[in-house]
Amino acid sequence: MASIGLQADGSVCRRGFSATDVQGRDQLAAWMKASGMKVRVDTAGNLIGRLEGQDPTLPVLMTGSHLDTVPTGGRFDGVLGVLAGLEAARALMDAGLELRHSFEVVAFADEESTMVGCKGMAGTASAEPTAYATSNGEPIDVNLKRIGGHWPSLASARRADQAIAAFLELHVEQGAVLEHRGDAIGVVEGIVGQRRFSIQVEGQPNHAGTTPMTLRKDALAAASRVVLAVESIAQLHPGDPVATVGRLEVWPNAANVVPGSVSMTVDIRDLSPAVLDQLVSNLEMELERISTATGCPIRLEPQFQVEPTPADAMVMSTIASVATDLGLRWSGLPSRASHDAQEIGRRWPMGMIFVPSRDGLSHSAAEFTTDRQCVDGTAVLLETIQRLDSALT
Amino acid sequence: MASIGLQADGSVCRRGFSATDVQGRDQLAAWMKASGMKVRVDTAGNLIGRLEGQDPTLPVLMTGSHLDTVPTGGRFDGVLGVLAGLEAARALMDAGLELRHSFEVVAFADEESTMVGCKGMAGTASAEPTAYATSNGEPIDVNLKRIGGHWPSLASARRADQAIAAFLELHVEQGAVLEHRGDAIGVVEGIVGQRRFSIQVEGQPNHAGTTPMTLRKDALAAASRVVLAVESIAQLHPGDPVATVGRLEVWPNAANVVPGSVSMTVDIRDLSPAVLDQLVSNLEMELERISTATGCPIRLEPQFQVEPTPADAMVMSTIASVATDLGLRWSGLPSRASHDAQEIGRRWPMGMIFVPSRDGLSHSAAEFTTDRQCVDGTAVLLETIQRLDSALT
Repeated sequence: MASIGLQADGSVCRRGFSATDVQGRDQLAAWMKASGMKVRVDTAGNLIGRLEGQDPTLPVLMTGSHLDTVPTGGRFDGVLGVLAGLEAARALMDAGLELRHSFEVVAFADEESTMVGCKGMAGTASAEPTAYATSNGEPIDVNLKRIGGHWPSLASARRADQAIAAFLELHVEQGAVLEHRGDAIGVVEGIVGQRRFSIQVEGQPNHAGTTPMTLRKDALAAASRVVLAVESIAQLHPGDPVATVGRLEVWPNAANVVPGSVSMTVDIRDLSPAVLDQLVSNLEMELERISTATGCPIRLEPQFQVEPTPADAMVMSTIASVATDLGLRWSGLPSRASHDAQEIGRRWPMGMIFVPSRDGLSHSAAEFTTDRQCVDGTAVLLETIQRLDSALT
Repeated sequence: MASIGLQADGSVCRRGFSATDVQGRDQLAAWMKASGMKVRVDTAGNLIGRLEGQDPTLPVLMTGSHLDTVPTGGRFDGVLGVLAGLEAARALMDAGLELRHSFEVVAFADEESTMVGCKGMAGTASAEPTAYATSNGEPIDVNLKRIGGHWPSLASARRADQAIAAFLELHVEQGAVLEHRGDAIGVVEGIVGQRRFSIQVEGQPNHAGTTPMTLRKDALAAASRVVLAVESIAQLHPGDPVATVGRLEVWPNAANVVPGSVSMTVDIRDLSPAVLDQLVSNLEMELERISTATGCPIRLEPQFQVEPTPADAMVMSTIASVATDLGLRWSGLPSRASHDAQEIGRRWPMGMIFVPSRDGLSHSAAEFTTDRQCVDGTAVLLETIQRLDSALT
């Protein structure tokens, strides 16, 4: 799959809805068909391979991820979960094992940009065409058509409440936690929610020579206190939330002028909505304190928020037992990046399996997970599917 | 004078060497001549009005400042010191008082950009034409010619070591210290020196979602500690130095990326070279500490430095006695902006008299000093000239 869209620098480019995306999906469909799966594309553009189960009255067991990449993507992000699902289906067939539940392997549409595939299936997709910021700038209806979807009947991609027994997604971690811990398998506890704010600090621009320290309202000095407050609010919390000031701009930004104003962003992520609320409330208190201490008015403006998606407790414990039984070191961790499982998990029991990413790198040619780690993850996926098939109704 | 170059917004534009600059100088020369002064322009473009003293063997008593402005200049910066000098000469003549020393009133050339006038007179001007960044972009020789100077013989503008008995400059404060203290007169203790550095903080750019707080090397969090260290190094010093981070840039500067690197400037000013050295050494220690604590390498690179110019002790105490005798509240303070006195004071006894600037504003239409304050400053200038004339040989 990595040969489709391979770039000179070793990265892979298969933007959603692009010619290479279509080529990758065609290749997957061919492999699925060759393995004896029934293949279709739903109206949200999701490519679905299906093995019929013994009991047609049971809901579907589903796994999958995505084939599309960022412009300079790696060979593992998304792809691993799709191909591992295909491999699990093949292994079941090779072993002559027929599941009770029908089993579906899904390549969700355009995960890296609009998430129209997983959102369409979960029924969380917007009906407003302008809500979709596609990477090629073309309208969502044109794009969906290109991969076999159908915008006017997007709503019919939504699955019924009882249609999915459980959803599993194997994915590379895109972080360095597992590598740091020396674990082979990550049992994802959920996908973190996000609160994004902009912060505006107002000081007073002044001559850096003629304005004594005591008469200054230095917006950058106040903003620096905000940056450190954001850092310590996350560090001091007993859980493991993250909080980041990623963007900061100074005005007028001249060496001989005391900064007059600063604008910055704050991005806060955690698994628990209560923790997110607590962090935001701590931030508000800190901003109040800093504003009083520095004499600089500080404005906090919400930009957007994404609610966390917890993993299902039973699915998580099944993954953990499987890892233990296969002799693989594992530990729990949150996913701090978005995944298709984030949307599917809003309505159906969800679990994610992480395997390590070397140096925590992803979205680049340097993204790397060893063959052994990929095999371990796939083995955990396969065994978890079988145990859920027995356990679930 | 403010009507020459007056802009629609009330600001004044007489850039050095411009048509309005020439017009202003011609007006001044006419007023000087009408007052009975002898007028000439030296090769550095300084316009000089002279009253002969009783004793032609004595060095010159000199006062002056500049007529040129920044693009959106005020009505007082520079002009006040020139016109007050002219007024002092007129008052002496009106009262029939002849000084022992010859008395010169100087409008120095292009103070706001190249300082070619005062530097030419002090002999600190560069002989390299490309060293002059003129505001109109034209070569310095062309510009000097336009105002009656002569680039090829710039060196002859340099006065001999014993040629100037003392130099006085009356100027608006361009800061809010006097207004804050409620004083009418500032006795300038000297013109601060300056050390300018760039600082480069190297972190590790990373996904703001997937990178736990403990695995980050956040360049902006480290840089924020640097900003606060710069601030407190100046605040905690027993004197009143200033230190400013005016420019700061983050890379890659995206809301969802942990900052990978930060570049910033540090500007440190104080009257004492020893204090400047101490502040720089404190900064180096703080950078070392922050680098160790954060794991981010930090590089400090000198950009330029300007040595301080202390005022002459006897001239300062004369100004102070005069203010006291005239019943004017006064206090000492450093000049943290550059002035013509900065260069003249490198070779001859120098003193500066400050009068308040409303709200500390300058270089704008809002620059304002009351008539009363201008008169008080001029009275102090006149009386100081007379006392120095008696005291100095």
